[in-house]
This record gives sequence, structure tokens and C-alpha cells, in this order.
Amino acid sequence: MNIVFRNTPRAPAAVVAGFAEFGVATVHEAQGRTGLLAPYMRPIFSGNRICGSAVTVSVAPCDNWMIHVAVEQCRPGDIMVVAPTSASDAGYFGELLGQSLHAHGVKGLVIDAGCRDIRELKELGFPVWSRCVYAQGTVKETLGSVNTPVVCAGALVNPGDIIVADDDGVCVVPRLEAAATIEKCGAREQKEAKVRARLRAGELGLDIYDMRKRLAERGLVYQDAPSEK
Amino acid sequence: MNIVFRNTPRAPAAVVAGFAEFGVATVHEAQGRTGLLAPYMRPIFSGNRICGSAVTVSVAPCDNWMIHVAVEQCRPGDIMVVAPTSASDAGYFGELLGQSLHAHGVKGLVIDAGCRDIRELKELGFPVWSRCVYAQGTVKETLGSVNTPVVCAGALVNPGDIIVADDDGVCVVPRLEAAATIEKCGAREQKEAKVRARLRAGELGLDIYDMRKRLAERGLVYQDAPSEK
Amino acid sequence: MNIVFRNTPRAPAAVVAGFAEFGVATVHEAQGRTGLLAPYMRPIFSGNRICGSAVTVSVAPCDNWMIHVAVEQCRPGDIMVVAPTSASDAGYFGELLGQSLHAHGVKGLVIDAGCRDIRELKELGFPVWSRCVYAQGTVKETLGSVNTPVVCAGALVNPGDIIVADDDGVCVVPRLEAAATIEKCGAREQKEAKVRARLRAGELGLDIYDMRKRLAERGLVYQDAPSEK
Amino acid sequence: MNIVFRNTPRAPAAVVAGFAEFGVATVHEAQGRTGLLAPYMRPIFSGNRICGSAVTVSVAPCDNWMIHVAVEQCRPGDIMVVAPTSASDAGYFGELLGQSLHAHGVKGLVIDAGCRDIRELKELGFPVWSRCVYAQGTVKETLGSVNTPVVCAGALVNPGDIIVADDDGVCVVPRLEAAATIEKCGAREQKEAKVRARLRAGELGLDIYDMRKRLAERGLVYQDAPSEK
Amino acid sequence: MNIVFRNTPRAPAAVVAGFAEFGVATVHEAQGRTGLLAPYMRPIFSGNRICGSAVTVSVAPCDNWMIHVAVEQCRPGDIMVVAPTSASDAGYFGELLGQSLHAHGVKGLVIDAGCRDIRELKELGFPVWSRCVYAQGTVKETLGSVNTPVVCAGALVNPGDIIVADDDGVCVVPRLEAAATIEKCGAREQKEAKVRARLRAGELGLDIYDMRKRLAERGLVYQDAPSEK
Amino acid sequence: MNIVFRNTPRAPAAVVAGFAEFGVATVHEAQGRTGLLAPYMRPIFSGNRICGSAVTVSVAPCDNWMIHVAVEQCRPGDIMVVAPTSASDAGYFGELLGQSLHAHGVKGLVIDAGCRDIRELKELGFPVWSRCVYAQGTVKETLGSVNTPVVCAGALVNPGDIIVADDDGVCVVPRLEAAATIEKCGAREQKEAKVRARLRAGELGLDIYDMRKRLAERGLVYQDAPSEK
Repeated sequence: MNIVFRNTPRAPAAVVAGFAEFGVATVHEAQGRTGLLAPYMRPIFSGNRICGSAVTVSVAPCDNWMIHVAVEQCRPGDIMVVAPTSASDAGYFGELLGQSLHAHGVKGLVIDAGCRDIRELKELGFPVWSRCVYAQGTVKETLGSVNTPVVCAGALVNPGDIIVADDDGVCVVPRLEAAATIEKCGAREQKEAKVRARLRAGELGLDIYDMRKRLAERGLVYQDAPSEK
Repeated sequence: MNIVFRNTPRAPAAVVAGFAEFGVATVHEAQGRTGLLAPYMRPIFSGNRICGSAVTVSVAPCDNWMIHVAVEQCRPGDIMVVAPTSASDAGYFGELLGQSLHAHGVKGLVIDAGCRDIRELKELGFPVWSRCVYAQGTVKETLGSVNTPVVCAGALVNPGDIIVADDDGVCVVPRLEAAATIEKCGAREQKEAKVRARLRAGELGLDIYDMRKRLAERGLVYQDAPSEK
Repeated sequence: MNIVFRNTPRAPAAVVAGFAEFGVATVHEAQGRTGLLAPYMRPIFSGNRICGSAVTVSVAPCDNWMIHVAVEQCRPGDIMVVAPTSASDAGYFGELLGQSLHAHGVKGLVIDAGCRDIRELKELGFPVWSRCVYAQGTVKETLGSVNTPVVCAGALVNPGDIIVADDDGVCVVPRLEAAATIEKCGAREQKEAKVRARLRAGELGLDIYDMRKRLAERGLVYQDAPSEK
Repeated sequence: MNIVFRNTPRAPAAVVAGFAEFGVATVHEAQGRTGLLAPYMRPIFSGNRICGSAVTVSVAPCDNWMIHVAVEQCRPGDIMVVAPTSASDAGYFGELLGQSLHAHGVKGLVIDAGCRDIRELKELGFPVWSRCVYAQGTVKETLGSVNTPVVCAGALVNPGDIIVADDDGVCVVPRLEAAATIEKCGAREQKEAKVRARLRAGELGLDIYDMRKRLAERGLVYQDAPSEK
Repeated sequence: MNIVFRNTPRAPAAVVAGFAEFGVATVHEAQGRTGLLAPYMRPIFSGNRICGSAVTVSVAPCDNWMIHVAVEQCRPGDIMVVAPTSASDAGYFGELLGQSLHAHGVKGLVIDAGCRDIRELKELGFPVWSRCVYAQGTVKETLGSVNTPVVCAGALVNPGDIIVADDDGVCVVPRLEAAATIEKCGAREQKEAKVRARLRAGELGLDIYDMRKRLAERGLVYQDAPSEK
Repeated sequence: MNIVFRNTPRAPAAVVAGFAEFGVATVHEAQGRTGLLAPYMRPIFSGNRICGSAVTVSVAPCDNWMIHVAVEQCRPGDIMVVAPTSASDAGYFGELLGQSLHAHGVKGLVIDAGCRDIRELKELGFPVWSRCVYAQGTVKETLGSVNTPVVCAGALVNPGDIIVADDDGVCVVPRLEAAATIEKCGAREQKEAKVRARLRAGELGLDIYDMRKRLAERGLVYQDAPSEK
């Protein structure tokens, strides 16, 4: 059955906003190294860092009909997540849909397929993370679903999950774990700030992390390189 | 037999120039979703949009001899299209050949192989769409042909066909259909301009394209998300 | 046995510095078309050209422990080269390690695996050439080696070899051939400078390289395109 | 948290057995074209068709520790499904683990990573569907989970879901939809049997499926090929 | 415009039959190293060698409607060649269509997309060369064309061209060059038979092909390996 | 400089023969998980297990001239290892060269490029591990080297190293470590034989390897699946 779920729950705006200062690597680490989409998901232009609640869209191969349907279910601050039911490079998304999402306050798009109108989307300032850039058109013949769970680029995304995306890629945070994850992100950043200061001063990770003893126990051998004649 | 065809017909300059205002996605759509080269063809630097008549070059694997031969057959405004007879990542093309084509008024290069001297070609302002960036050198031992039909990145290109290339990729337009395609591009752009204005104003594609009835007929179900306890 | 070689020989500073003016394509050609790493090795941000002595690091799959160990073996001007013993996309390297290498004067990193914290590394100005961008974290459980010979992206790299990297990719020069290679690079550049001037003036490679006779001997046929009715 | 769920529910044996006569393509179609794992999942030797209840295993990159843990949770007739948390080609599974699973009545393995000891597993008659064949060893250092939901080769698999695998690949059926899916498979097979008989007799699909009118409405043109002079 | 060309010319049956004794490598070489489809085109089961006249089918992405249309245009001895207008892994072809083509005397299928029902097609003895094996279903919504020129896996195929396929892959021979190519194949095979006999007797290619002098002229150096202490 | 080293040292015949009973996975493990070639190296037909001394061949892209040169340097029991200086899918090797190597007692070929004449090589019983199957012909224009160190599919191979290849892939053993590696292989097999017997009897790896305590220490939680209503 093809279904559009309306009014799916989202995390409180304050929680979503809490991710604004954290990058994908931090969030991924903070939640136990889970949630990353595959590394082939790349931004169509660099320099963006966004977070928001997922509106999920399951689309048929080479058919972007349900993206039009899904726009109506988006709220300002959301991020649209599109997953075809079969792998496709086709260009499901271009500037006109970008204008539409932009007009509804959507922050960006994550699509496990192709995107087109790169120049225009960049001018519009609408960020997209996609599998590839390809101008191949799609049809509007087959139904899909909106706001059902989807597997996007190898990661399970439920509607209302938090999406964090930057130049490192895309990470998904389960909605009900969002608040706890933000705390862990903050703790991690604080810890890293101290380490960063020491590393900048030239201290070695070997000493900061106290690795020497464990390396020796494992049997690491240090030796001067053989002299040359 | 290896052959160089001279004075292959080109579309009238006014027709070629007519493509200047249209992007790859528009041209691809206007001619019935045909003509795209494979999505792995990417610009070596972004921000270019060019159109011109194809000078086609069929080269042996890892052998760029015929590119030198083909320069002589180029006219100002042309675009060179190079296709190896067997897939190769080798760097057939670099800055010196870029200087040569630039000096003869060639607008750019489309090559289903590697390109090198990226920094220098960017400084020169000579755009290239290639399969990859790779410095691997090539030899000059085996003949090929110039201005014969080639298959480049999955698309058939005849000499004199119109090439349109931008950040979305590369599209080829058969020479004799060029004028008709421009008209269709214009019509498409006009139609899109109206839709764009409405989408920017927040109207939904669902309403603009009158999709709701057809979606219902196909059986799309709308439902509020189950409430959470 | 896992080993860290200390004080591995490096080429004299003046020799290393001699590569500063040459790009990857030139160096690759000058040493007989050898030394290139695979074309999938791309810079995480463009516009850099670096050269330096290799500190090699052999790491276990998804384990970046030895990178920490290797920092201590680096000297100002070195370039770190990391090769996993089994192919991996994981993000072995991020901003903190970048800070550490930067503090020790290391010029850049070449890693046949993933890199993360792209934005921060770009802000820091620390260039990386990697197989991919991916935030996936790694562990610190298994030993590897430092300054042993490694195969990185298909190329053999010995500690102390010269690494040259720019937007075209990465090339390795055996340490003991470095001085001779610089001479060949210079000779090649001088020759190219002359050819460049002639090509810019519109002369054809066909004439500059005196190719016409050899093409004819091989049987290349020139013919006017058939006229159209 | 790393967890092993014991005694996860399975579909009744009679229901699981009901899939024995249906292939992957039939099951995929019967449940609305869902459930397929990515096409890179190939059998290590051909000629098998198995079905069973999934025991899911989430493993760390290049670490097969949890496969040992999962064996204990398997029951006769089950199929083990292994998904690394980061893509890997490493050989997580070989003959010894095959012997172990075989001894516990497990029907086969589906693993989104590498497999080794192909010859021995074939002699044992233990079928495996894997991403690749690779002898690269793995470690036993990092925990994972057993019988939690996993994404395997792009498909969501819950413990107790039905796995169907044959030379066409792998398909997953949600446990609670298994009975209904069998019915649909049966209906589909009956319908196909009739069509098969007619096709074998030389009738055209055009006529059996009554396509001619719809083709004409869509504008398909039939025309004799131009005669040649 | 979508069109079905009927009664496209084929080479005389005697000419087509003339290819029966030659493999793909021989044919490819005989016609000047042209005509090969990409190496990703693999047989779904090995041991077949077929030749026949191409019936070409251009299909929309993930839409196999036109294959049904094309069956009617096939004659005994033909080979169907299917090319999607956009790259796709979907399973356009399975056992039922195999039964239909088999009933009409078609010798095999070449498809630049996915195939399914591998086991059944093998039992039927209907050979297929495809991009991949994948059970993903397709729709019947969008028109394509039959017996127009197509680009299939990087090779231009015109209706009536000769297709030769075996375990090495697929090669296409332009119809009007078919007779001449057979002659060249025969000459090549005769020449190879003599060389084969000499090689089997232990003679070296170096001597048979008289390579030693040319190698020396090019500067090849022979040297005993350095002795080991 | 292009060079052919004659009479490169090989391991004693008895040592080479010692590998006959061990598979690729065992050898790879025994030498500390090193020496594997990339997983894309696959046998052109299955069921072979060979070992022998490497004769290495460095060839130019799409040029198989040096393979002819290398035949003369082969001795009965050797295995030829071919590595192009730039990645290539071309079919460097076919039945005639197979006849030649077979006549000289060479056991098989490992080539990081394409192979052709699959059917004939299978009939001849000459095993090949290659990157792909492709009929694309190569030229004989550019020199390479024989019996110099090469990087083949990511692994460094020196002349005289031991090559072990079977359905799992290909592994290289440094010549001077060959004898020691055989001992380790034997020890490993003995240990595995005992484990195999216990696993076949249904014992768990958890108990055989005494893993339960360490799993608990790391924090693995066991829990019954939640009951369903």
C-alpha cells in the first residue's frame, strides 16, 4: 500500500537546533559510530552544514512523482530524504523542486540518486547531498510513500529523525535519541578542545592519550633505520 | 581504415549560438530525454556552460596522437570530443594541447578518459569534461580517425553535432535537429518560468500540475501518523 | 613483526625543495612515466602543490593507531603516506591529527582510505589526498609499522622517497633518483616552454613535432566530408 | 549498547517452508517489489535456493567476533545475515564457521562483506551470498549486536524475517507478512503458468496481455524499414 | 517519436552462419579491433557461443514494455539487443520472456541492464549476456523503439548487424561488412593454427614473430640477475 | 631503462612444492595477513589451486609485447605475474600465449588486466587469475621489463617470490620467507583440524576459543527478545 503519513512527530525545535554547532563526524562518533550514509553521498556544492527533521520519501525507480507529494508534508526547518526502491542515477531533482522546497522553508535535500541544475541550485543556495549529478529526466507514473521508514544510502531513516549534513557527508540521529546525542556531542567537543590545544602546542597524541605502554605491551619495536654505505 | 574527414558540415553559427542560453538538463528534456553522456563525465573545474559543433576524435587506448591531428580540423567555436576505442583512465590531454585548442578558438573538450594539468587548464580558462583526472602519459604510435561517428561515454556523437556542457554534464544534439531543439528548449523555458514564479510563491506542484485526482485514482492513501503515547 | 624505523634517510633539503616548481604530470613524465598513485586519490580541497619526504605508515583495516605513532617520526617538511593492509573507506584521519601534523611542520597527508573534517582541514590549510571522504570512525587495537615500504594506491613508496602532490594527483620519486629526476624535470619544462609559445601563437603540434610524414607512412587518409544534398 | 537478543520470534515452520518453492524474483514481485538486497550480493557457488528465518548480526568493520556469538542463537533452518557497520571487503567468514553453522542446521549465510574458503564451503555444501570473495582476515576486538535490526546490502532485515536466496540474489520478507506473501506468490505462479504455456506455444505477450491498443494510444508507430538501393 | 521498424534487412543466412565457428576475440581482431561491448557484459551461464542478426530495442529506464513489442519483430536465428536510455540494473528480462523468444527461434539476448530467473533460463538453455543479475521488476508505462540504432554497453548496434557472443563477451559486426569480416576471420584462424602448432612444440613467440631485432633496436637490455651472497 | 633479468633466483623446488597443500587463506594468515592481491582478481574458471615461483612482467598500457619476451625466462613450475604500468581492462592474454606458457611448463598466469579466449584456456587447462575478461586486443610497440619488482593488484611481487592462487584469489610469499611460512601454514592447519572436529560435533566457537569471559568484560548484554502481544 502506498501511503502518505501526515503530521509525523518531530523532535522539539530546540533539540533540532542543538545540532547546529556539530559536524557529521562528531555526531556519528557521539552516537556510537552509527548513522552514517554511504560515502558516495556528496554535496553538490561545498561549504554547507545543516540539520533538521527528516521527511522521508520512498520513490519508484526513475520516478519523482512522490517528491511533489512530499513537499506538502514539509515544514520550515525540515530536510527531505529521498530513497528510490531500486538504485538509480537518474536526475530526480532539479531547480524547480528546489524553488518549491526553498519556498516552504526546507533546509536541504538528501537523495540516494541523481540531482541536476547544479548551477541554479547553488545560486539559490539550496544544498543537496546526492549519489551523483546527472541530468537524466524521470517520469510521474508510479506511486511511492511519504514518511514511512526508508533505507537511504545504507542507513535506516525514520520520519522525524534528525539529519545532519556537511562536507563530510550525512548522518542520521534517531528522533528519540536526539537530546541525549546532543549532550554526548557537547561532551566530546569539550574533550577535543583540550586535546586540540595540546596538539597545536606540539604535544604528541602518544603522550596525550598515554599510548606508549600499551604499544610496548603489544610488541611494537622501535629501531633506527639501517645506516647506508 | 583510418581517416580524417575535413570540412565536415556544421550547423549555422546562429543555430549553435541559440543553445548558449540553455543548460544541459533543458536540452536533454527538449529532445525527448536523449543525448546525455554518462554521469561519470565531470567538469575539471565548475562554473562553465559552453555549446559548439563537435569535432570527433577516435583514439587508440593510451595514445593521444590523433588529438594533435584533430586540432587542425577545428574551427573557432568548435568543441573537441575524444573517445578511446577501449576504456582508459590515462591522461590524454594536458595544458599544452589546451593552449593549442585555445589558440584556435576551440571552446572546450569532452573526453571519455583522463585529463591532467588541471591547475594550468583552469588558469587558462579552458574547460574540460572528462572521465577522471590522471597524470598518466600516453604514446603516439597508433592511428585513429577524426570526424567519424564515435560513441563517447555511452552517447553517439557525429561530427557537427551540437555539444552542450555545463556543471550538470554533457548533452549531444544531432545537427539536423538542432534548430527544432532550440525551439523546444525555448518553449520549455517559458513554461518553466511560469511554474517557477508560482513555486516561489509557495504554491504546490500538486496543485500547479493538477496531480491530486490522479494520485487518488492510483490509490494513494493519506493518513495522520499514529499518535505516540 | 611490527616495527617503527627511526631516522630513516631523507633526500637533502635542497633536493626536496627542487621539486617545488614541478607538477605531478611533469615529475611522472620525467622519471619515465612511473610513480603515479591511482586516479581515485583526490585532494580534499583544490589548489595545493606540495613536495616532501615520505614517512610511511602501514595500518590495519579501520585502525588508525599507527598514525599517532608515526607523528613522532615526522620532521618539518615531511609528507605522511598511509596505506591500510586491506582496502578501507573508513575515516582514519581528521582535524585533530591534522593539527598535530601541522604543529610538527608536516606539509600534507596521502592516505589510501577515507578522511573526515574536510571543512576544518581546509580552514587549517592542511592538504590531504585521499581515496574518499567519509566520517566513519576507526579503532586503536592493532599494530602496524612506520617507515617500512608500503604499497599506497598501487604505488610502492619507501620511507624517504619524495612525494609530489597537486590537483592532478600524487607521484612518488625514489629517493636516490630524486636529484636526477629534478634535472629531467627542468629539461622537460624548458622544452615545453618553447613548444607552449609556438602553440599559443597558433602553430600546430603536427608541424612543431613534425608528425605529418610519419602519419602518412602509417597510412592516415585525409578526405573531404561527403557533400550533402 | 551491544546486545544479543535471545529467542527472537520466528515465523511458524510451516510458513517458512512455504517459501521453498518460490524464487527470489517471485517473492520480490509478490510483496510489491520490495525486499531485494543489492545486486552485488552474489552466491559463492550456483545452484542453491534456500529460505529460512533471519538471525541478524551487526559486526564492526573487519571484525568477525559477533559471528561466533551469533552461532549460539541459531536454530535449525535459520539463515544468518551479517552486516558490517561500515562497508568492508574483508573475509569475515570461512570454512570453520561454515562447519559450525552447518552443524547447527543453519541453511546458509548472507553477508555484506567478503567470504573465503570457497572451495571448502562448496564441498561442504554450505551456500553463501556475499559482496565479494576475499581471503583477508579479520580480528575479534570490538563488540556488535545479534538479533537487532540491520541494514544489509541496502535492505532492512529484522530478526525473524524470512530470507529467500537463489541464483538471482537475496530477498527479505517481513515476518508478519510472510503468510500473506506466500499466498500472493502462489497466485502469481498460477497466473504465470498459464502465460508460460501460451508463450511456449508461440503466442505473443502483445496479445496475451492485450497491449496493442494501449501502445497505439500512446502513439507507437509501426513502419517498414526503408528499402535499400 | 517512438517507432517500430519492421522487416529491417538482415545479412543472408549463409553469411550469418559463417560466424558460427569464430569466437568474439577473433571477430573483434578481424574487423580492426572494433565492435566490442564493455567488459561488464557477462554471460549468465557459461559455455555458449552464438551468432545472429540484431533486433535492437531501445527501452525507457526500468521499463520493459518494448521488449514485448520487439518479440513480434524477431525471426528465427535473431539475437535481441536491449539498451536502456539511462543506465539501469533493473531486471528487465526473465524466464517468461525467455520462453517467448525461445519459442520464436531467437538464439539469445544481449541486454545492458539486469536479468533474472537465472536458474530457469539456464534450464531452458536460453543464453543471456547482461550487465548484472538482479530480480528488480520493471514497469510497462513508457514507449521506446524497435530496430532503431542503439548504443549498447558502449557499442553502436544497428538493426541487422551481426552479433557474436561467447564467454569472452559480445562483439557487433556491421551488416554490410559481415561477409568481408568472415574472410578475415578465416585468414586469421589459418595463420593462428600454424603459430599454435609451433608454440605447442615449444618454439618462442620471440622467434616465430621475429621480435628480437626490434626489441634490441628499442633498447631492451638483458642481464643476469645479481648474484646473492 | 627497460631490462630483462635472467636467471633470477627461485626458492628450492621442495620449498615451492610445500605450498601445494595450502590454500590462499591459510598462507595469507600464516604470514601475518599480508600478501593478498586485490579481491577483483578472479579465476577465469574455478577449481584450481596452484603454487609456483613468480616471473614478473611490467607491461605498458594495452601493450603485451613483454609477455612474449618473458616466456623465454620461464621455467617449468613458474607462474607468470603481469602488471601494467597504468590500469587497463584490455585483453593482454589469450589462448596462443596460453599454449606457449603451457608448453614451457608454466603453471598459470596472474594478470592485473583483461584475459580472453576463456573457453579455449579452460579446454587447455591453463588457469588464469585476472582483473576481468575482455577481448580487446593489445599492441606491441612499447618496451617494459621482466623480473623487476612489480606492484600487481596492490601487492608488491618480486621475481622468485612464491605465488599461491586458488578460488579465494591470489597471495604472494616473499622468497626468503617461504620456508618459514610453510611451517606456519602447517601449524595453522593442525590447529584448525582440531577446531574443525569440535565444530563439526556442534561445539561452539564461544567455548572452544573461550570467548565468554572477554565478551562479558567488554560489556556484551544478553537479553530475551521482548514478548509480542
